[in-house]
Amino acid sequence: MSELAHLGPVELFTPDGDASLAFFVGVMGMDIVAEDGPSIYLRGWGDYQRWSLKLTACDTSGMGVLGLRAWSPEALQRRVAAVEAAGLGIGWTDGDLGRGPSYRFRDPDGHRFELYHECERYDPPEQLKPALKNVPGRYTGRGCAIKRLDHINILAADVRANREFCVDTLGYRLYERIQLDDGSEAGAWMSATIAAHELIYTRDAHGANGRLHHLAFWVDTREECMRAADIWLDAGIPIEAAPSKHAIAQGFFLYGIEPGGNRIEVTTGGRFVYAPDEPVVVWTEEERKRGQAWGVQTVESFHTYGTPPVK
Amino acid sequence: MSELAHLGPVELFTPDGDASLAFFVGVMGMDIVAEDGPSIYLRGWGDYQRWSLKLTACDTSGMGVLGLRAWSPEALQRRVAAVEAAGLGIGWTDGDLGRGPSYRFRDPDGHRFELYHECERYDPPEQLKPALKNVPGRYTGRGCAIKRLDHINILAADVRANREFCVDTLGYRLYERIQLDDGSEAGAWMSATIAAHELIYTRDAHGANGRLHHLAFWVDTREECMRAADIWLDAGIPIEAAPSKHAIAQGFFLYGIEPGGNRIEVTTGGRFVYAPDEPVVVWTEEERKRGQAWGVQTVESFHTYGTPPVK
Amino acid sequence: MSELAHLGPVELFTPDGDASLAFFVGVMGMDIVAEDGPSIYLRGWGDYQRWSLKLTACDTSGMGVLGLRAWSPEALQRRVAAVEAAGLGIGWTDGDLGRGPSYRFRDPDGHRFELYHECERYDPPEQLKPALKNVPGRYTGRGCAIKRLDHINILAADVRANREFCVDTLGYRLYERIQLDDGSEAGAWMSATIAAHELIYTRDAHGANGRLHHLAFWVDTREECMRAADIWLDAGIPIEAAPSKHAIAQGFFLYGIEPGGNRIEVTTGGRFVYAPDEPVVVWTEEERKRGQAWGVQTVESFHTYGTPPVK
Amino acid sequence: MSELAHLGPVELFTPDGDASLAFFVGVMGMDIVAEDGPSIYLRGWGDYQRWSLKLTACDTSGMGVLGLRAWSPEALQRRVAAVEAAGLGIGWTDGDLGRGPSYRFRDPDGHRFELYHECERYDPPEQLKPALKNVPGRYTGRGCAIKRLDHINILAADVRANREFCVDTLGYRLYERIQLDDGSEAGAWMSATIAAHELIYTRDAHGANGRLHHLAFWVDTREECMRAADIWLDAGIPIEAAPSKHAIAQGFFLYGIEPGGNRIEVTTGGRFVYAPDEPVVVWTEEERKRGQAWGVQTVESFHTYGTPPVK
Repeated sequence: MSELAHLGPVELFTPDGDASLAFFVGVMGMDIVAEDGPSIYLRGWGDYQRWSLKLTACDTSGMGVLGLRAWSPEALQRRVAAVEAAGLGIGWTDGDLGRGPSYRFRDPDGHRFELYHECERYDPPEQLKPALKNVPGRYTGRGCAIKRLDHINILAADVRANREFCVDTLGYRLYERIQLDDGSEAGAWMSATIAAHELIYTRDAHGANGRLHHLAFWVDTREECMRAADIWLDAGIPIEAAPSKHAIAQGFFLYGIEPGGNRIEVTTGGRFVYAPDEPVVVWTEEERKRGQAWGVQTVESFHTYGTPPVK
Repeated sequence: MSELAHLGPVELFTPDGDASLAFFVGVMGMDIVAEDGPSIYLRGWGDYQRWSLKLTACDTSGMGVLGLRAWSPEALQRRVAAVEAAGLGIGWTDGDLGRGPSYRFRDPDGHRFELYHECERYDPPEQLKPALKNVPGRYTGRGCAIKRLDHINILAADVRANREFCVDTLGYRLYERIQLDDGSEAGAWMSATIAAHELIYTRDAHGANGRLHHLAFWVDTREECMRAADIWLDAGIPIEAAPSKHAIAQGFFLYGIEPGGNRIEVTTGGRFVYAPDEPVVVWTEEERKRGQAWGVQTVESFHTYGTPPVK
Repeated sequence: MSELAHLGPVELFTPDGDASLAFFVGVMGMDIVAEDGPSIYLRGWGDYQRWSLKLTACDTSGMGVLGLRAWSPEALQRRVAAVEAAGLGIGWTDGDLGRGPSYRFRDPDGHRFELYHECERYDPPEQLKPALKNVPGRYTGRGCAIKRLDHINILAADVRANREFCVDTLGYRLYERIQLDDGSEAGAWMSATIAAHELIYTRDAHGANGRLHHLAFWVDTREECMRAADIWLDAGIPIEAAPSKHAIAQGFFLYGIEPGGNRIEVTTGGRFVYAPDEPVVVWTEEERKRGQAWGVQTVESFHTYGTPPVK
Repeated sequence: MSELAHLGPVELFTPDGDASLAFFVGVMGMDIVAEDGPSIYLRGWGDYQRWSLKLTACDTSGMGVLGLRAWSPEALQRRVAAVEAAGLGIGWTDGDLGRGPSYRFRDPDGHRFELYHECERYDPPEQLKPALKNVPGRYTGRGCAIKRLDHINILAADVRANREFCVDTLGYRLYERIQLDDGSEAGAWMSATIAAHELIYTRDAHGANGRLHHLAFWVDTREECMRAADIWLDAGIPIEAAPSKHAIAQGFFLYGIEPGGNRIEVTTGGRFVYAPDEPVVVWTEEERKRGQAWGVQTVESFHTYGTPPVK
């Protein structure tokens, strides 16, 4: 039981705002809900919040601010106190679009996070109301038609330090991790729910700080994930890793690079962790050499590329 | 081995051209390739011909002309001779859009057919060229994104007479049929290929002539068929029969009524008949009472409704 | 955040132990892990506990004891205290197979529940170890090959009273419910996790107490759910409701009756509720008349049949 | 319109009969229908013939005899005459199990083929009769539960010569081929039906004759193909190529090596060719460098390994 409800929204930086927007709207099938200066607020048809992605045109790529929704006002206060005690706090803000008071801080690696509880629920205009009242918005049926933001994988120079902060201070549950032969930690898969992962840290091959590995959007079936690969292919989106199944967390993936340079995943599946005392699965260096679940070897760039690029 | 290559294109009449067009383009995801007076020519992304559906606004609903592509110029001549010998010929036409000489005739029930061989292959504009060269057109990713025209089910006062004409004169293979306890034939499923059905006749409950039961469009997976049901639901398209599996031919279906009143199916699956001497499967009245494959009882309107409506 | 981790295992009574066992092993694809007198302990390949179903041959059908796993030893103590305060406690037991101290009680309707925390994790024999270390057991590939126990739907004479007990005393989250025009409650869908439902109460049409509506087992895809329908059909298992999509909770279902008379569901999908403040979806009598998501009308027996049968 | 109905049955040699049999029965889910000395006759649940695979234990691996079913007795006589005229005939045999008179011959590369028309249709025993009368046999629900034999890929020192023989003499339709920069042919995809491929020739990297690249079995969905990968992984079957989509023919694949050393594919999808005048798709060397449909690079062994092994 975590005091966090879930991860997101996420702010993504792009040096090519127009092309990135065309990708998220035309190819991924997200909808624009608001604009503010260089930022566009977007949502998938199944996001319950008004927006899940804030696309900000600027001079670089990478992640802006990562939102974390606390379970309750009280949980928010407790997590803020814990973060302050850890010495990583920045301070309260008025919150982003439709959001209540938010507390900004940094993880040990320097990524900016924002804890909040109050937020605006998506209220579709009359012509976009879905037929079923337990669906947040109407299915778009455009492009990949991604449903919602799912998880994020950020890079860190020291995975273990950041993982410990997330577990001890934020209250994440750790489900799986990679431990190399030298004892160091190469990756950590954490979640606030029974879903296999929401927040992932993997080692920055350049030893850099504050970088993004990828941002993942959910579709309900593997068929939709493979359909996304067909769509990306036709749209000229570089496919870095074709649809296949991860060994870690068992998720089904498609990875590619959006026009702004950020790695994007379309994902589905993944295991669900119902046991409250689920043992942490520790993968060894040798086990990782077997590749993904069905033996696909991970492309080299997957281990080295992140945004913003290291000069 | 049939001398016919496949069924289609099909002309569909609609008393509400604008609404029907909005359905086929916005909901079904077809593209407009040409217009000619009251007629709009449409295609699915996977149709190899330039068009597969001709939507003609007029004062009624139902089927206009049903195209049948002959395997070769010689096969065309032979089938025309057979039709003429059967006394059902009308005569040669210059052919519809992009089509060579076509021979128009009527089936015993009065539906208009057109045999042809020459036709125009779809040549996508540069920006719509698909990435894979063995795909006819680029996947649209809009709405149900149907792939292509698949089959047609027409109604006849006398199923057996029409079935015999199609088998004996046109050269269709008969795969399955329904024989009622009184010996009469209630339905016949025929194909020119190994696909389970292309041309279906079922009994007109009103004893009327020349009417249409439904027109079916293909998607590659059952997931897409169920997605189409979600999309129809949101778009307000009346769902007559929710996705399920037919006993006859084993196809997966979704049936509904387009704004012009015609019954439309989104379909996939269905068995493939590789045996050249496959026995015809004959379904009895009692067997049909068990409903569809998984026991779903067919809704009453499915047995009685057709277009144009009987006054 | 619930203090309960999840629902199960479940004990199921059957008046025909041999036939029920043949169903769960041969058709559903579960494995036998232990026997104890009239009871057989079974598991799906993806259950993390040693067993999820206890099949007990006796003179009736219906549910025996419903297990609820508490999040921690402390959560167990707190929930037991709450149940005792509500006056519904029975007392501590040594726990069923592989389980630590368990506290037995009744819900207001009389069903027997058992709260516990300690339990044995499945430890596959060497020849059944799965290749991936984050999978509990090896995929069986037999029959429907269900993955794990998913949820239960029990009947109650007074749905509201039981729902309030589950929410207030046990700590369940209420996601959806049916409220009839007369103000009474016809059904309540509750969960301890983000999964759309684990514990469902619907109204007993006979006003009886302690009865079972259905027990549901999970598969990962809709394709597997439809495959189960094919398998049930061949195996002669009566299909009560063919695969389709629920409006409530959006789960995909297949319902039938196992040889002991109990209704069994194969299920997948269903929405996930990430919002901590998700509004409860209240369905009206009129809305329910629209049938399931795609308009399938629920068969009458679904509203009246339960186990044990009412004399 | 080909005079051949379809490809198969196929005889497969294995140096480890017991292990190969355990693979085809326990992992692939085929059923044994007969035995004859060192040969076991097997079928998938959806094969309409009594058997589709003859597994023969001997001192090597590779393909034994490849059956080709002629459309009719007359078509058989015409094809035999054509083969004899081409100087590749061997002579008539009494036919294999349940088969009428068969004509044995060799392709230019030396593989043994057998043309036949008469064959025994599978007649399931009472307890294995399927519920639907248009299904050949009852779904097994064991392991990968492959449905039927689908296609074969054989190796040849001179692809063009063999392709020309198959098209000109046997009457196959050529759908796709690879032409290298030096003008030589590296692969040819042919079919007797609208299905994308039944008979494939690719270049033998060792310049050897009479070898097998792979034998492919059909499942109806990509989900089942991915499930097969999970099952192979647990069963210790080496996965040579994880599930993904071919560019050529668009089929979905899983490749691995059975215990006898032969490469086996589980396949589904693939395009259907309805146009009688479909242009042959010619892939260039550069296009092939892009890998499979979604960019997966083919593993080196796929281009070099075949059976029997070249000493």
